[in-house]
Amino acid sequence: MTDSLGALQGWSLPLSPRGRASLVPRPPWHFSGEAIGIDFRAEPDAAAAVLPEPLEPVGDGSASFVFCDWSSAADEDPRIAADPARGQYKEAYVAVQVRLDGRSAARVPYIWVDNDLSFARGHIQGFPKKFGAVSMTKAVSVGWGGPRVEPGSRFVGQVSSLDRQLARGAVTLAAPADPGFVPKVLRLPVWHTRLVPDLAGGEPLVHDLARNVVTDFAVADVWTGLGDLEFYESEFEELAQLRPVEILGAFRCSVAFTVVGAEVRPA
Amino acid sequence: MTDSLGALQGWSLPLSPRGRASLVPRPPWHFSGEAIGIDFRAEPDAAAAVLPEPLEPVGDGSASFVFCDWSSAADEDPRIAADPARGQYKEAYVAVQVRLDGRSAARVPYIWVDNDLSFARGHIQGFPKKFGAVSMTKAVSVGWGGPRVEPGSRFVGQVSSLDRQLARGAVTLAAPADPGFVPKVLRLPVWHTRLVPDLAGGEPLVHDLARNVVTDFAVADVWTGLGDLEFYESEFEELAQLRPVEILGAFRCSVAFTVVGAEVRPA
Amino acid sequence: MTDSLGALQGWSLPLSPRGRASLVPRPPWHFSGEAIGIDFRAEPDAAAAVLPEPLEPVGDGSASFVFCDWSSAADEDPRIAADPARGQYKEAYVAVQVRLDGRSAARVPYIWVDNDLSFARGHIQGFPKKFGAVSMTKAVSVGWGGPRVEPGSRFVGQVSSLDRQLARGAVTLAAPADPGFVPKVLRLPVWHTRLVPDLAGGEPLVHDLARNVVTDFAVADVWTGLGDLEFYESEFEELAQLRPVEILGAFRCSVAFTVVGAEVRPA
Amino acid sequence: MTDSLGALQGWSLPLSPRGRASLVPRPPWHFSGEAIGIDFRAEPDAAAAVLPEPLEPVGDGSASFVFCDWSSAADEDPRIAADPARGQYKEAYVAVQVRLDGRSAARVPYIWVDNDLSFARGHIQGFPKKFGAVSMTKAVSVGWGGPRVEPGSRFVGQVSSLDRQLARGAVTLAAPADPGFVPKVLRLPVWHTRLVPDLAGGEPLVHDLARNVVTDFAVADVWTGLGDLEFYESEFEELAQLRPVEILGAFRCSVAFTVVGAEVRPA
Repeated sequence: MTDSLGALQGWSLPLSPRGRASLVPRPPWHFSGEAIGIDFRAEPDAAAAVLPEPLEPVGDGSASFVFCDWSSAADEDPRIAADPARGQYKEAYVAVQVRLDGRSAARVPYIWVDNDLSFARGHIQGFPKKFGAVSMTKAVSVGWGGPRVEPGSRFVGQVSSLDRQLARGAVTLAAPADPGFVPKVLRLPVWHTRLVPDLAGGEPLVHDLARNVVTDFAVADVWTGLGDLEFYESEFEELAQLRPVEILGAFRCSVAFTVVGAEVRPA
Repeated sequence: MTDSLGALQGWSLPLSPRGRASLVPRPPWHFSGEAIGIDFRAEPDAAAAVLPEPLEPVGDGSASFVFCDWSSAADEDPRIAADPARGQYKEAYVAVQVRLDGRSAARVPYIWVDNDLSFARGHIQGFPKKFGAVSMTKAVSVGWGGPRVEPGSRFVGQVSSLDRQLARGAVTLAAPADPGFVPKVLRLPVWHTRLVPDLAGGEPLVHDLARNVVTDFAVADVWTGLGDLEFYESEFEELAQLRPVEILGAFRCSVAFTVVGAEVRPA
Repeated sequence: MTDSLGALQGWSLPLSPRGRASLVPRPPWHFSGEAIGIDFRAEPDAAAAVLPEPLEPVGDGSASFVFCDWSSAADEDPRIAADPARGQYKEAYVAVQVRLDGRSAARVPYIWVDNDLSFARGHIQGFPKKFGAVSMTKAVSVGWGGPRVEPGSRFVGQVSSLDRQLARGAVTLAAPADPGFVPKVLRLPVWHTRLVPDLAGGEPLVHDLARNVVTDFAVADVWTGLGDLEFYESEFEELAQLRPVEILGAFRCSVAFTVVGAEVRPA
Repeated sequence: MTDSLGALQGWSLPLSPRGRASLVPRPPWHFSGEAIGIDFRAEPDAAAAVLPEPLEPVGDGSASFVFCDWSSAADEDPRIAADPARGQYKEAYVAVQVRLDGRSAARVPYIWVDNDLSFARGHIQGFPKKFGAVSMTKAVSVGWGGPRVEPGSRFVGQVSSLDRQLARGAVTLAAPADPGFVPKVLRLPVWHTRLVPDLAGGEPLVHDLARNVVTDFAVADVWTGLGDLEFYESEFEELAQLRPVEILGAFRCSVAFTVVGAEVRPA
């Protein structure tokens, strides 16, 4: 909270005399969450159509839909972890597998979150976040109010935006994953488009490709199982064009990482 | 979903031809949650003032404030557990210790929840629920986005209603509780007032005292620690009159039970 | 706020020492709102199927769907009108025309609101309210951000619940209604079922039919026009069974009334 | 919806094959709203402290707090006006009077909104928007559920963020304003800081001053009256430092304008 722009303080808007009003603090940012993911194949043409150059399609439409219930923190702003309404949020996104410079990567064309800090922090990274209502089945450790993490338990994720249901997916747990297994969608670098339009009418003020520089990536309690996934039409979205033609698998896990910066290249 | 009232179906409103619109199904109802609780003493006169006859004050103002993140289910309505937005909710309440027929019990004068199923189900029990926004620190198992369940970790709960902050409390974990320890506020029977006013101007249509008949009560992962708790003024509430004069302790745990019915006595 | 139940005060829960925590005050209650309504015909059998005895179907499935943006007040609780988050709410409901004792009346089998005061006050009347997100086009008086009240303007209403879209309707204004015209759905008495289940396992604690006793009914600025209306499937609702087979008309107006009590008869 | 960035479409994120997922369309943007405003003096030093160079304080701490219930539209995206949940939003902001190049202007250091389109569109302009819950008394035209626009009626605005109440203000109407009167805070150009931090660690990607280029500004139904205004502490805000030391007046009106672009100068 110590960035200074003239007499005003803040790494992001709003600037203020003491820098305490700023929404997004300087990284490092820490993330710990519970994820439900469904791996699927979209129509290959539809999956290719959401990619900007020079991202190349993998050809078979491989993609994943992920729901995640996050807790977040930042070294420079202890208020984010201290306040349960500030640092926590839920998000839902689709990630399409791509190739870049001959290596595997991913693209997140659409993502919804339920918290303004996450929204603004996401746009700084290039995540094209919109607001949505995300709900996810929670695991319980006692009683019968919800499912345990055990074979046969079903964990559901849902997302809606503007009161339209957009996607519903689930994993029915089969077994813990092999030691060392990491769901592919969670470990691929994600290449975003950072885009800031110019209200004054010029070319975009920012227009490049960026991926997060991440440390301390970890997963735990990874289970795999059967997946199901449905997308729904909304006149405000193009998610339904990516609807599954084949479900490849599904997982549930804990996941964590730290964002320390970004690697950038021309759009 | 099979209660029949004439041609219409439903244990609660709304009635409908197939009984699928009804909000609250017949019990048994199952609850599993994560709780943060702070035990405190209110001013004894203030604690006594929230009790209806024949509930008697314990004399020292002993009370607890509890935040809970619930998953719920019902034997007769599998949709509640199947849909993550339907069965889950968060609530915050204050419980005042009482004596009834020479035995220890509790009274919950004020409680806030964030879900209409919980609201309606609560009023059927006599819980005087109002809507509120409840947030609670979540435990994480990997990474640095939130606290682990370990000594020194701080778990915060907050509740607001009508955009006014009402209460904020926290437990700073010290150590796991002894085996078999159950936080007192979770195991006391809670005597509610069931009260349904008559819009036609007569005496209340329902006015008695009731407590839930509970089975399968369980706690797990109980930790105790230092507590802190603050209440805030709102012109719509009288919670602030119960503000802590002494903090007695605090806990965090998983908790579960099943509600199968109610015991009723005259008000 | 002066109802006394022993030492505790309140016409409805929660009871409290000074009666300031109570959610619903004693009537009279005042309502002023802006309504969008679409008159339609459902399948006659579907319309008949939502009626309890002795309500009789009118035979042709006549019904209306109404969206309303309400401000409410109560003589005994000035806080409701004083606080813009307390007294205001939006609701959406379907009303089916019926006959009772040879006279025209209506039944509201399904209704959604976005405010806990309205929810609890509704259940006291017998309105089978559930929570929903309701949005309605607002009229503007300057500029181009929204429609004016003028021929050709389109006013849309939408309702969703549990993140599922349930209904969307609109009126495209044609002309002001004739002086003295009152949309039929707004002036018919609505017969509700008051139903309070008994958690202790007995017969319902309350089960009768009731209609509001209303004074000071008024409408203003009534326009009529073309209507459109769509219902959507949700596994939590049976609204879609009432879907329109014919649109009869539509209106937009201001509406107001005061609820002073209820007339009750056996269910 | 026709901006093309390579094969992908959209003036703002998210980009998509057909441009229908993009959150913010290219201007012109149209706004029509109902505003409650309270003119006040803050401590002059506090008012000066929120200004970046070269904005100069007016010296006496003159400022206004405004609540506005907006309907918005965009020439290139008819969905915004067509959907009542998309184009409408409420916002609350404080505007501090400034001098720039010898002319009167304003600065909005803090602003809260309840809609993601407004949030993203605001940041493109330089409005330092955060999410908040805003409520405002509505005028009614029939009945007693709310106030009429008439002498003595009181219209209240409230804003909270992260469940903390931030500001509450009201105007008690005295009389219609003189013809041609425009509340000063609504007609001053507002100079924003456009600021986009660089996650890659460099200087901000965007850092300049901008004001909207506006056409078709209009007000209607302007009433003035007595004002009251309170700010509340939040550890996430610095609004309370601007708390009123004197209330100068208050107004309620309809307001509209069109944003067609921006004028930009170095920060």
